Amino acid sequence: MSKSDHPQKRDIPIGLDATGTRREFDSMGDVRVPANKYWGAQTQRSLEHFDIGDDRMPKEVYHAYGVVKKAAALVNAAAGRLEPWKAEVIVQAAEEAIDGKLDHHFPLYVWQTGSGTQSNMNVNEVLSNRAIQLLGGELGTQQPVGPNDDVNMGQSSNDSFPTAMHIAALEVIDERLLPEARRLATAIRAKSDGWMDVVKIGRTHLEDAVPLTVGQEWSGYAAQLEACIADLEHAREGLLEIALGGTAVGTGLNAPDGFSRDVAAKIAELTNKEFVTAPDKFAAQGSLDPLVRAHASFRGLAVALMKIANDMRWLASGPRTGFAELLLPQNEPGSSIMPGKVNPTQCEAIVMIAIQVIGDDSAVAFAGSQGNFELNAMRPIIINNVLHSARVLADGMARFRTFSVAGTELNRDKIGGYVDQSLMLVTALSPVIGYQAAAKIAEDALAHGQTLKEAAVASGKVDEESFDRIVDPSRMVGSGVAGA
Amino acid sequence: MSKSDHPQKRDIPIGLDATGTRREFDSMGDVRVPANKYWGAQTQRSLEHFDIGDDRMPKEVYHAYGVVKKAAALVNAAAGRLEPWKAEVIVQAAEEAIDGKLDHHFPLYVWQTGSGTQSNMNVNEVLSNRAIQLLGGELGTQQPVGPNDDVNMGQSSNDSFPTAMHIAALEVIDERLLPEARRLATAIRAKSDGWMDVVKIGRTHLEDAVPLTVGQEWSGYAAQLEACIADLEHAREGLLEIALGGTAVGTGLNAPDGFSRDVAAKIAELTNKEFVTAPDKFAAQGSLDPLVRAHASFRGLAVALMKIANDMRWLASGPRTGFAELLLPQNEPGSSIMPGKVNPTQCEAIVMIAIQVIGDDSAVAFAGSQGNFELNAMRPIIINNVLHSARVLADGMARFRTFSVAGTELNRDKIGGYVDQSLMLVTALSPVIGYQAAAKIAEDALAHGQTLKEAAVASGKVDEESFDRIVDPSRMVGSGVAGA
Amino acid sequence: MSKSDHPQKRDIPIGLDATGTRREFDSMGDVRVPANKYWGAQTQRSLEHFDIGDDRMPKEVYHAYGVVKKAAALVNAAAGRLEPWKAEVIVQAAEEAIDGKLDHHFPLYVWQTGSGTQSNMNVNEVLSNRAIQLLGGELGTQQPVGPNDDVNMGQSSNDSFPTAMHIAALEVIDERLLPEARRLATAIRAKSDGWMDVVKIGRTHLEDAVPLTVGQEWSGYAAQLEACIADLEHAREGLLEIALGGTAVGTGLNAPDGFSRDVAAKIAELTNKEFVTAPDKFAAQGSLDPLVRAHASFRGLAVALMKIANDMRWLASGPRTGFAELLLPQNEPGSSIMPGKVNPTQCEAIVMIAIQVIGDDSAVAFAGSQGNFELNAMRPIIINNVLHSARVLADGMARFRTFSVAGTELNRDKIGGYVDQSLMLVTALSPVIGYQAAAKIAEDALAHGQTLKEAAVASGKVDEESFDRIVDPSRMVGSGVAGA
Amino acid sequence: MSKSDHPQKRDIPIGLDATGTRREFDSMGDVRVPANKYWGAQTQRSLEHFDIGDDRMPKEVYHAYGVVKKAAALVNAAAGRLEPWKAEVIVQAAEEAIDGKLDHHFPLYVWQTGSGTQSNMNVNEVLSNRAIQLLGGELGTQQPVGPNDDVNMGQSSNDSFPTAMHIAALEVIDERLLPEARRLATAIRAKSDGWMDVVKIGRTHLEDAVPLTVGQEWSGYAAQLEACIADLEHAREGLLEIALGGTAVGTGLNAPDGFSRDVAAKIAELTNKEFVTAPDKFAAQGSLDPLVRAHASFRGLAVALMKIANDMRWLASGPRTGFAELLLPQNEPGSSIMPGKVNPTQCEAIVMIAIQVIGDDSAVAFAGSQGNFELNAMRPIIINNVLHSARVLADGMARFRTFSVAGTELNRDKIGGYVDQSLMLVTALSPVIGYQAAAKIAEDALAHGQTLKEAAVASGKVDEESFDRIVDPSRMVGSGVAGA
Repeated sequence: MSKSDHPQKRDIPIGLDATGTRREFDSMGDVRVPANKYWGAQTQRSLEHFDIGDDRMPKEVYHAYGVVKKAAALVNAAAGRLEPWKAEVIVQAAEEAIDGKLDHHFPLYVWQTGSGTQSNMNVNEVLSNRAIQLLGGELGTQQPVGPNDDVNMGQSSNDSFPTAMHIAALEVIDERLLPEARRLATAIRAKSDGWMDVVKIGRTHLEDAVPLTVGQEWSGYAAQLEACIADLEHAREGLLEIALGGTAVGTGLNAPDGFSRDVAAKIAELTNKEFVTAPDKFAAQGSLDPLVRAHASFRGLAVALMKIANDMRWLASGPRTGFAELLLPQNEPGSSIMPGKVNPTQCEAIVMIAIQVIGDDSAVAFAGSQGNFELNAMRPIIINNVLHSARVLADGMARFRTFSVAGTELNRDKIGGYVDQSLMLVTALSPVIGYQAAAKIAEDALAHGQTLKEAAVASGKVDEESFDRIVDPSRMVGSGVAGA
Repeated sequence: MSKSDHPQKRDIPIGLDATGTRREFDSMGDVRVPANKYWGAQTQRSLEHFDIGDDRMPKEVYHAYGVVKKAAALVNAAAGRLEPWKAEVIVQAAEEAIDGKLDHHFPLYVWQTGSGTQSNMNVNEVLSNRAIQLLGGELGTQQPVGPNDDVNMGQSSNDSFPTAMHIAALEVIDERLLPEARRLATAIRAKSDGWMDVVKIGRTHLEDAVPLTVGQEWSGYAAQLEACIADLEHAREGLLEIALGGTAVGTGLNAPDGFSRDVAAKIAELTNKEFVTAPDKFAAQGSLDPLVRAHASFRGLAVALMKIANDMRWLASGPRTGFAELLLPQNEPGSSIMPGKVNPTQCEAIVMIAIQVIGDDSAVAFAGSQGNFELNAMRPIIINNVLHSARVLADGMARFRTFSVAGTELNRDKIGGYVDQSLMLVTALSPVIGYQAAAKIAEDALAHGQTLKEAAVASGKVDEESFDRIVDPSRMVGSGVAGA
Repeated sequence: MSKSDHPQKRDIPIGLDATGTRREFDSMGDVRVPANKYWGAQTQRSLEHFDIGDDRMPKEVYHAYGVVKKAAALVNAAAGRLEPWKAEVIVQAAEEAIDGKLDHHFPLYVWQTGSGTQSNMNVNEVLSNRAIQLLGGELGTQQPVGPNDDVNMGQSSNDSFPTAMHIAALEVIDERLLPEARRLATAIRAKSDGWMDVVKIGRTHLEDAVPLTVGQEWSGYAAQLEACIADLEHAREGLLEIALGGTAVGTGLNAPDGFSRDVAAKIAELTNKEFVTAPDKFAAQGSLDPLVRAHASFRGLAVALMKIANDMRWLASGPRTGFAELLLPQNEPGSSIMPGKVNPTQCEAIVMIAIQVIGDDSAVAFAGSQGNFELNAMRPIIINNVLHSARVLADGMARFRTFSVAGTELNRDKIGGYVDQSLMLVTALSPVIGYQAAAKIAEDALAHGQTLKEAAVASGKVDEESFDRIVDPSRMVGSGVAGA
Repeated sequence: MSKSDHPQKRDIPIGLDATGTRREFDSMGDVRVPANKYWGAQTQRSLEHFDIGDDRMPKEVYHAYGVVKKAAALVNAAAGRLEPWKAEVIVQAAEEAIDGKLDHHFPLYVWQTGSGTQSNMNVNEVLSNRAIQLLGGELGTQQPVGPNDDVNMGQSSNDSFPTAMHIAALEVIDERLLPEARRLATAIRAKSDGWMDVVKIGRTHLEDAVPLTVGQEWSGYAAQLEACIADLEHAREGLLEIALGGTAVGTGLNAPDGFSRDVAAKIAELTNKEFVTAPDKFAAQGSLDPLVRAHASFRGLAVALMKIANDMRWLASGPRTGFAELLLPQNEPGSSIMPGKVNPTQCEAIVMIAIQVIGDDSAVAFAGSQGNFELNAMRPIIINNVLHSARVLADGMARFRTFSVAGTELNRDKIGGYVDQSLMLVTALSPVIGYQAAAKIAEDALAHGQTLKEAAVASGKVDEESFDRIVDPSRMVGSGVAGA
């Protein structure tokens, strides 16, 4: 093919230097769009029909969609279905979308069509017009690169949108959520290691119990997080299977043989992730189960974080009338009226984030259950919650680690004083003098304001020397974290 | 007092024409803030410590806080606690906040301290600096109008933040949610009235049942919404009780006698709503129960909307292979791959909004349960969800009404055809020939592909004339909407 | 009509002295049922098809259904539709159901048809056979009193089941939930009154704050509960509107004119509650909104209880290493291994009950949203959760009151000691010496282990005499519970 | 040791032939218990203090606890800590508990102490008394086999209860939930295979779409279930790590070295499951995360089941005015008033079960987040929900499979008719004549009531022969289930 047979790609920077409006059209007719935007008729219709609140489809979805469009163009071109010169400009436009350079041209709301079609068409229209621009054509003509026939070639929203959802979700999991979870686990593990020999009193039912070490307590936090990380790593695998190639209902109508396999391989290559084509396209398009499971894994992390943050803020309560074992960093004044007050604000933020994630998880599961026939049309709500939860968890963990965990110190005087006072050390006597006799000693000590030793010796069940030998907190904590 | 005793208020427009940073301080020391922003040290600390996701404290909270600060300044001035010239500038700054003119100076995140103290201090700092500016003073000196001692006079975050929450929530309920709910109910009621005589087949368990009219069916939708509106009107009343005057823990320490009563009266005057001081400040600050109840009422609306939107999209399913009784407006092309497809997208948006509100309601209740002692420190998450739910419900109902309900038409051929085919008209025979005999006729008709009349006459239980007289769909629908 | 025209009612006690099985039939054919049970073919089919778990339709539903059947029989008889001698035996059988005497004959599972038809038919069959027995007839013949034609006369499951749901729900609310909520509020109010002058340290963000009295703190609990009670009283009103008279789809087909009104009046008379007929039967049968709202009100109570129970268990934590302000009754040994340990078990039970109610509330709202067309077929799950939540809340509050609240005592030494140590008393100095100077004093005291007074005097900002005058905890708590 | 040194085990059957009450005691004093029950003082106290609703601790927990007690006795005996003759009778009693023979002696409520201590003591007391009985001793003396010192040797509720939870949960997962899920998946896969060539019209957004086969549609259901099964298999692995050996707070106090490892090995041997000791006992006792994750997996199954059951009931809607593609088995009459009506009741039951499981999952996550320090005291609520969800899901799937899936047939006339009528077959023309031209044809056909072919030919874009060649539904469904 000679050069003169088709328009040449030009080196035109992103942007439309125009004012007023431009005519665009779709199968329903003409629409005026802002002249300085690449989008077309269907985007404009959606903007007007779905002007609901402030929730916009997350930009990550469009970045991921760029990958989908680029991969499809490359595979279509390689198969001879799409002219190379068209593919070239679609690919360039898609790369610009991937890099976030077209973000201002993706204005749509979360609350739109349940299939995400309007966002797919937004991408198709923007890439089409950008491609037309690169080829020196006239925007709004859909020539020579059409949004449906070229950019969307071999695709449906029904298979491409869930593909973009999986790519976007994996991106935020791999790049943000997992790294921050690992960093937090590492930071907590370091605290645990450093405090492994500091004996403290344990508490069960909020009540005084037998001793353990601060390091043992924090090892529990680290172990919880490590298990959550393993679960996230498992849940993310379900997202590696993508729907692209199922087209409208899963059968692959209008996509050529092998498209599923080829495009998945191309996406794997472009993202450097092990994407494969979903073995059953009817499940992949009729359900959103892998995302429901991924969010459940986020929720597991939220549950663990809430325990950890709550423990920290309770153990830091005081300074004079609370537990006061931990000293959290003082990042800001705590009260507009009480001078000198410092509050566990990072912990509170984590608790609120955890509650939001747990609540959003209910929405995700509910939405996941509401598919019908060949489509689960609850996609925008699910991807919005998945990306939101991942972001606030990741950022929240980063701040919590930096501004709370890292700078937490021990109030060793307080910790040691509690060990001295606790009556539950009596438990060590139980195997020697029996449970009932030991219980009596603890009760007597409490009733008479005695130390445990005083009450024990007074009971006649044990002499002072034996008491000192048996009731030794440092020997009551065992060794390591695996129990007896 | 002579004019020379204090600085004079000047007519200085909003805005800081400065670049770089400015020194601000709080009880923890100095902080650099952007020179073109009014905020001070504590706002800056929060911005850096809580850089989490994209969720910002809703602007409505700051508008409401403007009311709180204005009312407090006026009451403090009237009581002789705050110099009139200070009150004057605080009031002006507060009014600017109320009008949204200072929105760019309220940048904080939702995920911050659980009391909202940082947002209260943001307001205190911005109003303080704006007041200083109006008096020709130097920003960052806290002189002559201090954020704590003057703007926050007689207040704590602990009582002022929940007060702002109630004001903001009522504002969105009264100005957005209730009007849109009423408009939608009215629109649906009009549809019901217009279609009151169109006989259609009823469906229970998704299965063919006895007839009713389209108007009766839609009257059910209207009645659901009307009951939701009544419930919202009830739930909003709980928000009229405000905490202001409880200060730090509910006792009112550092606020003068009568402050609670006076400031509530002032807020009522400023907002034209029947605010009163909460009779028990310990409940008002230790819990967020009225907001939990308000959101439960939002959820009730979501539940009703989901039923209505689902019915509409199912009844509009088709056009050739679904129920196809309703013709929804065609607002946009429905598919990127299937030409000519039109989808019930407004209904899908409402369903997703409803699910999100129901999920967020879980988060609100969870957070509402997590108060401790004199404070429920889950305020930001609750007000964020309350305002978000109200906004998306209100906007969603507006779009749904405009772009879906208003333009919905009947497919009368289809509706009439179903009435002719239904076998459940046999129910009318039941009182005459008995349940079991009637059941036999329906089964026979289905098994042999007969009309009901054919099977009935063939059964020998009823003659043709009787059948025509008894089995008359137009007489089977009763009259009105109150049943028999 | 002479006596000989119809069978005479005999005085036959409840019970079937037979073994093996009995033939019963319905429109699908014959079924063998246990000979010692009154139920018929449809009950038996349901038992076999829905053998799922251990959840049985709550007996309260059947007691309420007895009211429905009795009222319908009386109204039908009064209208001349049902022979008086049939009505008489149906009424007797219904009264036996109301009194729980037929409970063993209502075996069906919760997880059955979503309309509750199988439970309605269970009632119809049992009352029919019991009526037949009373008339000396042969069980299983449906003569002379038929389950559909007589016991179910003028009714459908679609209108009678939600009517029974409302009756059952109101019964448990009025007889169990509200009385127990009121008793608990009264008990807590009494504690509040008794402790109104005991000064303690307040806590916000779990951190030391300014003082209040124990009575003020508990007044907050009482006020929360009192608001919940008011909300329950409001929510119950929505249940007074009943669907009966709508029959199959809301139109009232096969029920005579005036049936709705008459049967509601009869049910009001029988129950001594202000039942009225629902003004819109399509809403009353197509939705379950009033029950969703009622459960939301239960949830509001759960939210409040969780705050109260959590406060109590934290304030009772210790005895040596926790807050230890409260002394809860010691009802049982707390540990199988730690002698002498006592735990806040009643509080834990309340917390778990609250969480379950909050979780079940999600299920209720979800189910409430899933109606389609003329029926919400999620009735069994909703009534089961409504009755379950009411029962466990009522019983839980009763135990909590008796075994925890009533016997709670104060640890006055500990409470007083905290007041002496707290640094937040510095807040009282703030209006005198300014917020920043006051903050410095508190920080110094903490840093150097000083008392507040020592640090204050050392600061030079206040002399000893002034300190003693200003920083007087007993004057810092204000008066009453309404703040300043 | 000679035989005469200790009491001999006798062959005494289970049961206490006594009336009235018996004296029992614990560290708080004497209690009267029913003479015909094995339980002791602490069980009796709990029964009286926690008489709340009807929810009893599931029997499976006690069966699992039998395994714990048996394993502990064997390990203790092998280590020489527990006399062999004591171990022998404890083991026998434990085996009786495992076999369910002592179920009537485990009466406690779910709503009890949050650690499960009361149920542990119930087991300890019952096994102690049963062992005493076997040895000819006197019940209530705690001699020669004591509940705390012997049966509970080396254990705490804090480590033994979560161990029993894991065992009970795995038992129901392995024996009930997974097998039923597999059977259902197999049954649905068989349907899919059998109908792989039956072309039907697809539906997206509930609207007519392009064709697929019934078998492809059902393959999606099977694939969803198969993925859920894989997820359950993964989630169950987390339950194989058990806490036993951590004793009171995780340190293993009062348990001998190696106890954790040995007792896990013994439990693995007894249950034939790969149990291992949890590597971090502080996580294992301070959190319940593995059970939260397991329930999330149950929820994933619920989400999938809801999609499947909903599809089935919608596709079976009719018979005359719905989709009517599927013919579900007619298991029972559907209506008490509408003769001949048959409803998708098994589907409705599954939907309700799914909603309950999703709601209960919220409660499980909430409870899972509420641990404090060395204990998550929300155990009873979590294990009750876990076991309940597994049971109702398993039973529900079994009934659904047997009574609905297995007997489902196709209404081939209806299915074929829809294919003929659908306009979305136009999609096949799109690659040939372009999207916009194809859209126009579909719109014209709808507007003028034409067949697609009529409109296509009329458009002049395609001739009749080409249309027949291109628009061939049987070729539009592709091959297999993996898309193009």
